[in-house]
Amino acid sequence: MALDDGAGKPLAKYAAWRRAGDYIFLSGIIPVNPQLGLIVRGYDDIPPAAQQQLGRSGEFSTDSKEGPILAQSWYVLESIRTTIENAGGQMSDVFKLVQYFRNLDHFPYYSRVRKLFFPDTPPVSTVVQVSEMLPSPDVLIEVEATAWLPK
Amino acid sequence: MALDDGAGKPLAKYAAWRRAGDYIFLSGIIPVNPQLGLIVRGYDDIPPAAQQQLGRSGEFSTDSKEGPILAQSWYVLESIRTTIENAGGQMSDVFKLVQYFRNLDHFPYYSRVRKLFFPDTPPVSTVVQVSEMLPSPDVLIEVEATAWLPK
Amino acid sequence: MALDDGAGKPLAKYAAWRRAGDYIFLSGIIPVNPQLGLIVRGYDDIPPAAQQQLGRSGEFSTDSKEGPILAQSWYVLESIRTTIENAGGQMSDVFKLVQYFRNLDHFPYYSRVRKLFFPDTPPVSTVVQVSEMLPSPDVLIEVEATAWLPK
Amino acid sequence: MALDDGAGKPLAKYAAWRRAGDYIFLSGIIPVNPQLGLIVRGYDDIPPAAQQQLGRSGEFSTDSKEGPILAQSWYVLESIRTTIENAGGQMSDVFKLVQYFRNLDHFPYYSRVRKLFFPDTPPVSTVVQVSEMLPSPDVLIEVEATAWLPK
Amino acid sequence: MALDDGAGKPLAKYAAWRRAGDYIFLSGIIPVNPQLGLIVRGYDDIPPAAQQQLGRSGEFSTDSKEGPILAQSWYVLESIRTTIENAGGQMSDVFKLVQYFRNLDHFPYYSRVRKLFFPDTPPVSTVVQVSEMLPSPDVLIEVEATAWLPK
Amino acid sequence: MALDDGAGKPLAKYAAWRRAGDYIFLSGIIPVNPQLGLIVRGYDDIPPAAQQQLGRSGEFSTDSKEGPILAQSWYVLESIRTTIENAGGQMSDVFKLVQYFRNLDHFPYYSRVRKLFFPDTPPVSTVVQVSEMLPSPDVLIEVEATAWLPK
Amino acid sequence: MALDDGAGKPLAKYAAWRRAGDYIFLSGIIPVNPQLGLIVRGYDDIPPAAQQQLGRSGEFSTDSKEGPILAQSWYVLESIRTTIENAGGQMSDVFKLVQYFRNLDHFPYYSRVRKLFFPDTPPVSTVVQVSEMLPSPDVLIEVEATAWLPK
Amino acid sequence: MALDDGAGKPLAKYAAWRRAGDYIFLSGIIPVNPQLGLIVRGYDDIPPAAQQQLGRSGEFSTDSKEGPILAQSWYVLESIRTTIENAGGQMSDVFKLVQYFRNLDHFPYYSRVRKLFFPDTPPVSTVVQVSEMLPSPDVLIEVEATAWLPK
Amino acid sequence: MALDDGAGKPLAKYAAWRRAGDYIFLSGIIPVNPQLGLIVRGYDDIPPAAQQQLGRSGEFSTDSKEGPILAQSWYVLESIRTTIENAGGQMSDVFKLVQYFRNLDHFPYYSRVRKLFFPDTPPVSTVVQVSEMLPSPDVLIEVEATAWLPK
Amino acid sequence: MALDDGAGKPLAKYAAWRRAGDYIFLSGIIPVNPQLGLIVRGYDDIPPAAQQQLGRSGEFSTDSKEGPILAQSWYVLESIRTTIENAGGQMSDVFKLVQYFRNLDHFPYYSRVRKLFFPDTPPVSTVVQVSEMLPSPDVLIEVEATAWLPK
Amino acid sequence: MALDDGAGKPLAKYAAWRRAGDYIFLSGIIPVNPQLGLIVRGYDDIPPAAQQQLGRSGEFSTDSKEGPILAQSWYVLESIRTTIENAGGQMSDVFKLVQYFRNLDHFPYYSRVRKLFFPDTPPVSTVVQVSEMLPSPDVLIEVEATAWLPK
Amino acid sequence: MALDDGAGKPLAKYAAWRRAGDYIFLSGIIPVNPQLGLIVRGYDDIPPAAQQQLGRSGEFSTDSKEGPILAQSWYVLESIRTTIENAGGQMSDVFKLVQYFRNLDHFPYYSRVRKLFFPDTPPVSTVVQVSEMLPSPDVLIEVEATAWLPK
Repeated sequence: MALDDGAGKPLAKYAAWRRAGDYIFLSGIIPVNPQLGLIVRGYDDIPPAAQQQLGRSGEFSTDSKEGPILAQSWYVLESIRTTIENAGGQMSDVFKLVQYFRNLDHFPYYSRVRKLFFPDTPPVSTVVQVSEMLPSPDVLIEVEATAWLPK
Repeated sequence: MALDDGAGKPLAKYAAWRRAGDYIFLSGIIPVNPQLGLIVRGYDDIPPAAQQQLGRSGEFSTDSKEGPILAQSWYVLESIRTTIENAGGQMSDVFKLVQYFRNLDHFPYYSRVRKLFFPDTPPVSTVVQVSEMLPSPDVLIEVEATAWLPK
Repeated sequence: MALDDGAGKPLAKYAAWRRAGDYIFLSGIIPVNPQLGLIVRGYDDIPPAAQQQLGRSGEFSTDSKEGPILAQSWYVLESIRTTIENAGGQMSDVFKLVQYFRNLDHFPYYSRVRKLFFPDTPPVSTVVQVSEMLPSPDVLIEVEATAWLPK
Repeated sequence: MALDDGAGKPLAKYAAWRRAGDYIFLSGIIPVNPQLGLIVRGYDDIPPAAQQQLGRSGEFSTDSKEGPILAQSWYVLESIRTTIENAGGQMSDVFKLVQYFRNLDHFPYYSRVRKLFFPDTPPVSTVVQVSEMLPSPDVLIEVEATAWLPK
Repeated sequence: MALDDGAGKPLAKYAAWRRAGDYIFLSGIIPVNPQLGLIVRGYDDIPPAAQQQLGRSGEFSTDSKEGPILAQSWYVLESIRTTIENAGGQMSDVFKLVQYFRNLDHFPYYSRVRKLFFPDTPPVSTVVQVSEMLPSPDVLIEVEATAWLPK
Repeated sequence: MALDDGAGKPLAKYAAWRRAGDYIFLSGIIPVNPQLGLIVRGYDDIPPAAQQQLGRSGEFSTDSKEGPILAQSWYVLESIRTTIENAGGQMSDVFKLVQYFRNLDHFPYYSRVRKLFFPDTPPVSTVVQVSEMLPSPDVLIEVEATAWLPK
Repeated sequence: MALDDGAGKPLAKYAAWRRAGDYIFLSGIIPVNPQLGLIVRGYDDIPPAAQQQLGRSGEFSTDSKEGPILAQSWYVLESIRTTIENAGGQMSDVFKLVQYFRNLDHFPYYSRVRKLFFPDTPPVSTVVQVSEMLPSPDVLIEVEATAWLPK
Repeated sequence: MALDDGAGKPLAKYAAWRRAGDYIFLSGIIPVNPQLGLIVRGYDDIPPAAQQQLGRSGEFSTDSKEGPILAQSWYVLESIRTTIENAGGQMSDVFKLVQYFRNLDHFPYYSRVRKLFFPDTPPVSTVVQVSEMLPSPDVLIEVEATAWLPK
Repeated sequence: MALDDGAGKPLAKYAAWRRAGDYIFLSGIIPVNPQLGLIVRGYDDIPPAAQQQLGRSGEFSTDSKEGPILAQSWYVLESIRTTIENAGGQMSDVFKLVQYFRNLDHFPYYSRVRKLFFPDTPPVSTVVQVSEMLPSPDVLIEVEATAWLPK
Repeated sequence: MALDDGAGKPLAKYAAWRRAGDYIFLSGIIPVNPQLGLIVRGYDDIPPAAQQQLGRSGEFSTDSKEGPILAQSWYVLESIRTTIENAGGQMSDVFKLVQYFRNLDHFPYYSRVRKLFFPDTPPVSTVVQVSEMLPSPDVLIEVEATAWLPK
Repeated sequence: MALDDGAGKPLAKYAAWRRAGDYIFLSGIIPVNPQLGLIVRGYDDIPPAAQQQLGRSGEFSTDSKEGPILAQSWYVLESIRTTIENAGGQMSDVFKLVQYFRNLDHFPYYSRVRKLFFPDTPPVSTVVQVSEMLPSPDVLIEVEATAWLPK
Repeated sequence: MALDDGAGKPLAKYAAWRRAGDYIFLSGIIPVNPQLGLIVRGYDDIPPAAQQQLGRSGEFSTDSKEGPILAQSWYVLESIRTTIENAGGQMSDVFKLVQYFRNLDHFPYYSRVRKLFFPDTPPVSTVVQVSEMLPSPDVLIEVEATAWLPK
């Protein structure tokens, strides 16, 4: 399952990731493809295989309510995977996540997705609800990851 | 002074702490006992010795106003102490705190408690007010700690 | 260009910076001079050279709108520079920033200033909007920096 | 799986159901046990078997977010089943539902539960979000059912 | 006790009631006299006998608080009685009520009035709080009734 | 004038209509085409003949204000007509409507459209303003219809 | 069709109109009769012929929603006609209007009325929504007109 | 009918009553038992005899709406009676009341209760609605009484 | 200048004034005539002489803004004068006022009126802004007076 | 009475006034001295003679409430006088004013001041309440004037 | 420790205190020095000795949060002491306090200060939260005191 | 650089511009193309040359924040240029602008653009913030221009 090239790329003048010693630090990642100038808004913005994995029901009312947070959660975590792989590591090297939500009622949806990406040892985790993220209020989640990747 | 077993335990599928190199990273800790499904709401939810240490006045109006933030501050910092000790360190190894409040007017109360836990060299500190934390709006404070504990 | 002595100094009992291994961790820095008890509120609170660098227009309506966030952005980043130099490093050693805003519409102003401080390799970056920061709602931005400075 | 005796009983002076011709009309049912004076607030207020059926995760953060609407949805639909059985019919005789929510973001949760109760022919359905229901804002859902039960 | 001719008459192009099979369906009725263009606002807008029956206290503060909902409740239910009698039935033929409130704190007042109109077998009942009704926010209650009246 | 195939089709697992005895009960219908995943947002989403019938002015300011509610009103009532015809009846068999609005200031527009669909005997009618409908706040109106259609 | 004497008269110490060169400048006109101390609130406050011209439906719900803005629009424009005639001109001499609304959803109603007063060459027009006008929030519209009337 | 020992006792360091000359001055009394740390929240928090006297209906919807203010009103006035009796007087010596409400819609309920305590000569009375009282927003009423009790 | 008979009379079952020792205590007085069931809303509700004394300008915009608070202030203070005279005293015997406002921006208007009633020694005074007074939000001011009137 | 040099000067790159034909058009003027970067906030920001003319009472509560709008009204109108004199005219040449308020309750204060500046023929006038003006919410009033000054 | 001359002086035309019989009645006192036109806003506005007594921490974040209410509490109570001494009495003669807060979360701070002024027998006390006090929203507390001082 | 044909065209039945004597009066112009029914929402809706001129950064976060107001400002002023040229004049003939904003924090962006269009003598200018403009809340700015163009 491959993301568009834009996924996880910086939206402004900052680095997507930086190595410092044995650690890889990632910027906070949001569900946005800056190349395309697109914010992930629902199932239609992620690959069909991901839709299926997340349990798209095919019922309009349900999907239009669940879709945004599930698709954004998947896209953000998938972008973290892509980024950490670019840095030479893999998802299991990520040991710490700081997660910002616009609405904590979305947490159960996100939590379900996160387990798909961390089937084994889970990372440490901080979760708070903030009032807005870049670039617009349509962004429901932002995740900042840190990995340990001794050279 | 011993906490209930549940204090500082993860509320979802994530690690309470992870070692990466010489550092111990803790998840954001909130004043909740997940085993008991209880949120600390006031003096009555912490041990009597802690109540005394925090200056419980015995006057209902005062205690019902000061109590929630003082008790939550104590519980969160005590949970951090328990967690870092589980990881083989002690409170003075904690060198960094990120502190989330629901209402920054609570800061003077928290600051008073923090000095009890860091009588000597204080950690670096970041403080912001967010709109909500897990699992409910009754949570007034969340603290994410990092410790340096060379093997 | 020299800051007042108070810039970047802690506002409560916490450390301005701490070394842990090869890293320098800074506390979250806000546009406040605790010695003077002053919050930076506009162009008049920063040195003339900085005003010019930020493009003060001399038009009252424009300056009173742009001034607060530009001056606070400059002051915070300059305080980070001062602090990291106190720790024996320089701005280019900073590889990670977590940035808290009260209003993300201010981001373009801040971004313009940040480029002045990081002309070369940019740091990783996390940006969220929170509801308030210490010591009062007049604070528009807080930045937490981390540097890598092997001994 | 048996409900407490109070489930589905009227909260004031009105009938729980009335037969008129070949139809059974039910009052709007809310997740409240009037005998006990209790509002269903989460998993702990419904039987363990129902909790399991609804997928209680055992993670505190997740359960405290999903639990209230899942448990209320189950309790209301189970109360409808009990009531229609008291009237001599069964769940499949119910052909019409009017559903009131306090927050339509809860719809996907409710929809998942409703399928358990109507595995075959589904009823006609009207869904709106209202500002409050009896007896307090803790009530998240109210359902009015009609059944066809020719004598 | 006779209502003005306008009570219960449609406010727009719709039927006040329609027979379909053995049932009489009434439109939602609000406390408005469309002939006079008047909304019932308090005790003074209903007959003296009704005022007495509802317990007008003669104390201005009490009556100005209780009066609007008590008078509207009476007027709406009395209009339903008039309408069902026009259709050839009587109040006891009404077996179902859907009741919309602007403020559910008014429920105890309404409930007290409803018992006067249904001294014997009560109807099934659905109660929700909505944000507004026609023709203006002064309307505190709307009731939709259905009666069974086999030919 | 033919609607898209999707009009009036259920958005989740429920029936578009159900016969019970001599009555046809319809689900609440909203201005959404679930096949296309489209919400009717203005004149451009309905057939040209309908636009003309509703009096599209060709003036941008006027049409962008009047268009959404007029087009949604037409679409919902036309969907009801399609649905009742699928059930073997016609619009004049509809004898009861419950109408939910997001803003009752839209009522005069809707009322004008309803007269086009019910030129002769009007149905009974209940009208309330609710805070939201499925699947999103863009939905301005939902109508639940009942028809009498003796076999 | 004649207005009351008070229509268009100043409400405070200012001129209803002033000639300056070849132009007639009018004060902003609101739907208020200062002599009577009355604000136009609906159809009943304008002459029957105007009511008919505006399409009073006779249905209470519709008229109570459409009436206030239609009647105020008519009254304000008719006052402008009266005022410009007092100044020796006629409606077609008015070439500019600035129109303030309390709710721009009212624009289609106003636009319909304005066409009655400007059947030929329309004036230039500016439209904004403001938060309140004199003398109270019941005023929905204010119009400032300018006419060209060479001596 | 006896109150718990805590009723009417001070919540902080102040006197419950003080004699000054021929007058007894009482502190503002709220529906709280400071010994137990309990706020009166409904019928269940007052003695059965008082419940009956206040007309508990046994209907859950009604009691959960009327109960809080009726029970608090009773508890506060009963506490005043107890306090003035401790001071050597009786209820009829109270000649002045200042009454603070959180919601003046509660006044009719309170007024009904007050008549039970002052069956003969009523006191002078001041009533205002304030935004909150100690110790929490659950307190709906506070009453400050003054008695004349010549030695 | 004489008030209507209703001025200053109690609105519920309480005393307008009570003597206790050498003092006359008045209930809080609001600008309402309970006999007529009227709230003073502007200049037209007070005698012409009082209007003149308060400086009615005759300009509609000014009077409709200043009128309500000036007329209510006058009415309340005049009611106090009437009440204290009924008790055998006069305005100069009043030595204490507690004044409740709904909007403290009204204070300058009230203060101007108060000087007319207390041309010589002024009383002690407490002023606060509360959120509402009886019987409705139209009441802008309530004044509680105390007089010393040794027998 | 002379204003500071800055009064009425443009706050950005625009003209304070422009002649076009026989007319002088002024920019909207606010109570700000751009040279000093000061907003007029009360009596202390205007000359003593003006304070006296406006009736400064010397009572702190009254002056702090009335002062801001009276001083701003005076400053703005005085600035208009200065500007029109710079253009070669005088106050009586001003024939049109558009006045923007942040709170129309301030109108009576402004109207009182305006009469001082236009003792004879008053101008035409438009008054609306807007939500904010440059450079900050402290600005309570802005006035745009036009004068007729044939060459 | 001496207050400025202005402390406790009336802000408008009313008496600071009045004797009536054996009692001294004080006006409601706010933390304002009317001579200087200054509102107490923090530690810097009270004497150093008082700052020390109240526990000024020297930490900016803490002091800027605790300072305003502690300083205002001290200033108001000190003003009451000064006033009662002017009347010939002392603090222990004060037997009754009515205390108005803008935010009851401030109560514990105030309570701590009040104990310093009443080390022995405490007064009776009424506490409510109101929405504003004179002269501006910066005032956090107002206290009305009464003393018994037989001649 | 050419605008689409629709730019600056009326959105309803009014004139885009009118000559009266030596003046050209323009209607208020908004960033809308009525032919296309499009509102300018960001950089992508204006020509590339204009984007470059306005300093598009290519950073997604920055452009999505700055873009809407910069693009709308450009589009509106360019439409004014087109319109005045249609009337036979040029931008420098425009001597007066009234500018309405939805958020005055946008002023510095607009001011920067305006200087591009008025490099020499600037017009007189009035600026206010209103709550909404036609046709929807997406419109951030409206500008009404007047030109002097003697025949």
